[in-house]
Amino acid sequence: MFDKVLIANRGEIALRIHRACKEMGIRTVAVHSTADADAMHVRLADESVCIGPPPSNQSYLNIPAIISAAEITGADAIHPGYGFLSENAKFAEIVEAHDIVFIGPTSEHIKLMGDKITAKEAASALGIPVVPGSKGAVEDEAQGLKLAADMGYPVLIKATAGGGGRGMKVVRSPEEFGPALAQARSEARNAFGNDQVYVEKYLARPRHIEIQIFGDGQGSAVHLGERDCSLQRRHQKVLEEARSPALNDSQRKKIGDIAAKAIAKLNYRGAGTIEFLYENGEFFFIEMNTRLQVEHPVTEMITGLDLVREQLRIAAGAQLGYTQDDIKFNGHAIECRINAENPRTFAPSPGRVTEYHVPGGLGVRVDSALYSGYQIPPHYDSLIGKLIVHGTNRNECLMRLRRSLEEYAIGGLETTIPLHLALINEPDFVNGAYDIHWLEEFIARQG
Amino acid sequence: MFDKVLIANRGEIALRIHRACKEMGIRTVAVHSTADADAMHVRLADESVCIGPPPSNQSYLNIPAIISAAEITGADAIHPGYGFLSENAKFAEIVEAHDIVFIGPTSEHIKLMGDKITAKEAASALGIPVVPGSKGAVEDEAQGLKLAADMGYPVLIKATAGGGGRGMKVVRSPEEFGPALAQARSEARNAFGNDQVYVEKYLARPRHIEIQIFGDGQGSAVHLGERDCSLQRRHQKVLEEARSPALNDSQRKKIGDIAAKAIAKLNYRGAGTIEFLYENGEFFFIEMNTRLQVEHPVTEMITGLDLVREQLRIAAGAQLGYTQDDIKFNGHAIECRINAENPRTFAPSPGRVTEYHVPGGLGVRVDSALYSGYQIPPHYDSLIGKLIVHGTNRNECLMRLRRSLEEYAIGGLETTIPLHLALINEPDFVNGAYDIHWLEEFIARQG
Repeated sequence: MFDKVLIANRGEIALRIHRACKEMGIRTVAVHSTADADAMHVRLADESVCIGPPPSNQSYLNIPAIISAAEITGADAIHPGYGFLSENAKFAEIVEAHDIVFIGPTSEHIKLMGDKITAKEAASALGIPVVPGSKGAVEDEAQGLKLAADMGYPVLIKATAGGGGRGMKVVRSPEEFGPALAQARSEARNAFGNDQVYVEKYLARPRHIEIQIFGDGQGSAVHLGERDCSLQRRHQKVLEEARSPALNDSQRKKIGDIAAKAIAKLNYRGAGTIEFLYENGEFFFIEMNTRLQVEHPVTEMITGLDLVREQLRIAAGAQLGYTQDDIKFNGHAIECRINAENPRTFAPSPGRVTEYHVPGGLGVRVDSALYSGYQIPPHYDSLIGKLIVHGTNRNECLMRLRRSLEEYAIGGLETTIPLHLALINEPDFVNGAYDIHWLEEFIARQG
Repeated sequence: MFDKVLIANRGEIALRIHRACKEMGIRTVAVHSTADADAMHVRLADESVCIGPPPSNQSYLNIPAIISAAEITGADAIHPGYGFLSENAKFAEIVEAHDIVFIGPTSEHIKLMGDKITAKEAASALGIPVVPGSKGAVEDEAQGLKLAADMGYPVLIKATAGGGGRGMKVVRSPEEFGPALAQARSEARNAFGNDQVYVEKYLARPRHIEIQIFGDGQGSAVHLGERDCSLQRRHQKVLEEARSPALNDSQRKKIGDIAAKAIAKLNYRGAGTIEFLYENGEFFFIEMNTRLQVEHPVTEMITGLDLVREQLRIAAGAQLGYTQDDIKFNGHAIECRINAENPRTFAPSPGRVTEYHVPGGLGVRVDSALYSGYQIPPHYDSLIGKLIVHGTNRNECLMRLRRSLEEYAIGGLETTIPLHLALINEPDFVNGAYDIHWLEEFIARQG
């Protein structure tokens, strides 16, 4: 096992990694920007190195500074956390070129999954279901109609050069196809000077369901079940749960087995997440994240596995050491992301924490680097904490969530705690009847 | 289920009960002394009633005031917590005479187990092993020698009127018996004016191991495994763990089954704990506590059961609903009691909490009613919090305990956190090689 790990991140995830290291007897090196000199992970780490000022490209994204910090402190390995350099294949390459272990997959796998086109091709080749669509641009109406009939209506016509909804048309029947194609081409020509379009299956109200996987790069892989992350605002997850209220056990097993088999075939190393859109009983690959996710704790609560410990073990060369049959799922878990934001306008609300009291007791976990008196710097993501509850079933979790949110006191700034309290009173949420659009509609209704 | 529960206690256990009630949709009534007006459980409860000033006999032990509070607020049931009135059979009787449910066993069972003599007789009759000893006073040396030979040396000669170690002699061989008997009789005559003595088996260095049981008063009962509470100072538990490092699975099963069978035969209702001394593979009954224990969380962590929820369910008339085979034990858990005391002299250290930061993350639970700015009143027990860690095995727990204790920050008063940090560095503790005398010897060595 490693003697010393450098944590190339900040905030709650830096603390999360520090904790796992300490519990394994590994010394830690914190790197931090000048704005983060007083951060909790810096206070607790065995050593710390300042790697530059904000913004992040001068510090947390500053590869030479991070490599120097690792060399100066003699770190054996670097854990990149999530965000920042965690999915930067070049960083992984440079780390390994310096004879330091990158705690994550190979740079080839990061690269493969970092490109939407190659990722989708790879997923498809590995037997993972992808959104059906034309291979390239649609030639004419006749070819388009045939493609649409094959994949089933509704379909989406999209400008190949597109973005921002221009040159994009939802088509619900063959009769609509011709006119929609003409209109999309015309819009695309006007907007991008290029009238090429392609066709793919349109998912109207999907859920976001993702599968946590783990491989050892030595031929073994398992899945750790799904997480439902459909509650999103502007493509940012707000609340996640495991297991998904939308799936039954046979659906879970089917998609889990597909994921684990693909990962074993890829000979993937470490933690990863395969993200899907889910609608009408079907899964469609979106992307694969080749790192730890923010929402990994819900998986830890229901599997009893420490995912950061597993990352460290595997990065140090250990074999997985268990098979799919050894993974048991126990109860239900929900995570609320607590952001330093106005809970209605979502305007960032950095500031000094004047009061700080976290909920405790049975089934409650808080992952946060906040402390009373801490000055939240304005330069970074507004995530300031994660409240995770675990219970024997979803209803117990919801009740536990309510009492925990009521105990949570953060003073001196605005947080999204009131949003979560409002959310858990909504019958749709209580019934698990939500999709990726539901939260934005809920927020709009709240005014 | 109940609509409203009155919590006849204070501190962390009042908050613990409040949390379980809220998670079951039950409204709560806090009762408090004038010294506890600002207490956390009072702040969080749906209603609160002041029941008098300190000391406790004027408030938390004031039965008429508590009954009045229940009647005024229309509470359906009273949870007594631990300590105070929790094992007062008269209180249980009065509560039920007022048509309020007492959340605990029948007053008959409280009375039976509240008296050392009747408890030992009852235990023995129920098939629970007790410390072998003479039925009454020893007649003469010949009878004493025969008794000692039957139970095996060493034995203890004790004055029947005794206390404080006077008239008490450890006898290690038959040769020592005659002189020791004469000396004990002489001491007893001088100290108590009564030279009657009895003989019982002497346990030199036992462990304190207790079995958590649950019955529904309708014929069903289970045990929830053991807790090792050998680490004590002046008969006060300091750190508890489940499972005991001293037992193997067949020993666990044997004593657990004896306990569960006895409890079913007794037709006992609710939570209870059968305490044993354990030495050389043998268990000897000490007493049965007819209430929730301070250390109940370690059992919750390894069984996944919420013991307060179970108490409420059963008090409301529900059947147990599971059998022994449904109880699964998962991993290991350790609880540290954090007291407001000097960690070397153990002098109480009440005061204002100027800084308060609890550890978080995976496998960490804090049960505490402290908050920043809270003034700890000097009138009560010095327990201010419980840190409970859970892990897949004991070693993981020990590592998690260390990093959690290092994160724990309580300012403005002295606490026993440094004692726990010192403790987990001791090879004997790490190896699980301790008995009921070990901690006091360790403290003495620390100077």
